[in-house]
Amino acid sequence: MRVLGIDPGSHKTGWGAIEVDGNSVRHVDNGVIFLDDDRDLTVRLVDLTHRLRDRLIELQPDVVVVEDVFVRKGARSALILGQARGVVLATCGMQGLPVKSVPTSQVKLRVTGHGRAGKTQVAEMVRALLGLPELPFEDAADALAVALSMAGDVGVATPPKQARRRAKGRDALLELARAQGKA
Amino acid sequence: MRVLGIDPGSHKTGWGAIEVDGNSVRHVDNGVIFLDDDRDLTVRLVDLTHRLRDRLIELQPDVVVVEDVFVRKGARSALILGQARGVVLATCGMQGLPVKSVPTSQVKLRVTGHGRAGKTQVAEMVRALLGLPELPFEDAADALAVALSMAGDVGVATPPKQARRRAKGRDALLELARAQGKA
Repeated sequence: MRVLGIDPGSHKTGWGAIEVDGNSVRHVDNGVIFLDDDRDLTVRLVDLTHRLRDRLIELQPDVVVVEDVFVRKGARSALILGQARGVVLATCGMQGLPVKSVPTSQVKLRVTGHGRAGKTQVAEMVRALLGLPELPFEDAADALAVALSMAGDVGVATPPKQARRRAKGRDALLELARAQGKA
Repeated sequence: MRVLGIDPGSHKTGWGAIEVDGNSVRHVDNGVIFLDDDRDLTVRLVDLTHRLRDRLIELQPDVVVVEDVFVRKGARSALILGQARGVVLATCGMQGLPVKSVPTSQVKLRVTGHGRAGKTQVAEMVRALLGLPELPFEDAADALAVALSMAGDVGVATPPKQARRRAKGRDALLELARAQGKA
């Protein structure tokens, strides 16, 4: 099964394809669609549509997994990110592909064992899991992590139970602290 | 010149077309694209793409104006709205249409003379300006207001100077109060 992970953005959109076969995962390809910041938003979104569609036709994934980012920077940033994410979802849907959504925290938890792992940690883990010769571009690494997070069932990308429990426990504590206005 | 206004949303997207000719505006058509809330987001966005494209082909606008909503309800709502907005922009752009963005406050100011006018007030003004026999659906009325806000140059939809000044003054005061943490 070929899984394409996507990390959408209004300036750059990372993508990464892996092949999941029984108990193993194999890297297929990865990259970043850079959009021209000098162009107007509509032009950028049309460009994203065209270039993502080209990748879909070329890569022929069986399923697409799109990162569902938790935006901390306020409503304006979320609206802007949402515009790119909507275009990604619609473009994949228009190609008749099944699309899944996965929250960033779950991607990090599944791939590194920590729901709050840093970008470098995620990239390093992606490189190790897929045996890549070098670190991919940040957004492409995120996209590969998104794809890997869906390959959890094959065992390779699933963190040990202890790490999972630890991460879960910490998240629950943070949640509690936040609810009490302490974090 | 035919102007199509759009009020995008992840559940319903209003649209309204007007014809601007010298000093007059004429209503062409309006409506709402309702999306099936029971379906998954990707399916809804694909549906929005198809149905909006049909409208564009049918209405043949010269320019599309899309409302740029200021989201007060937090990042999650903004992300969701952004997804529909991105699809609207890309769909119009894919048809080769020029797309303009207009903030909600400017639409309200131009059409009613008040940057914070209520929905009913906007709909009533739209009905009056276009001589409609009845109030359009809320989202369609918003979309017509968006189109009318771009027809300001024809005079019809421009509020009197005094109202404009009053609204501007009030917005500036609110801005100041907000900056001082008072509002």
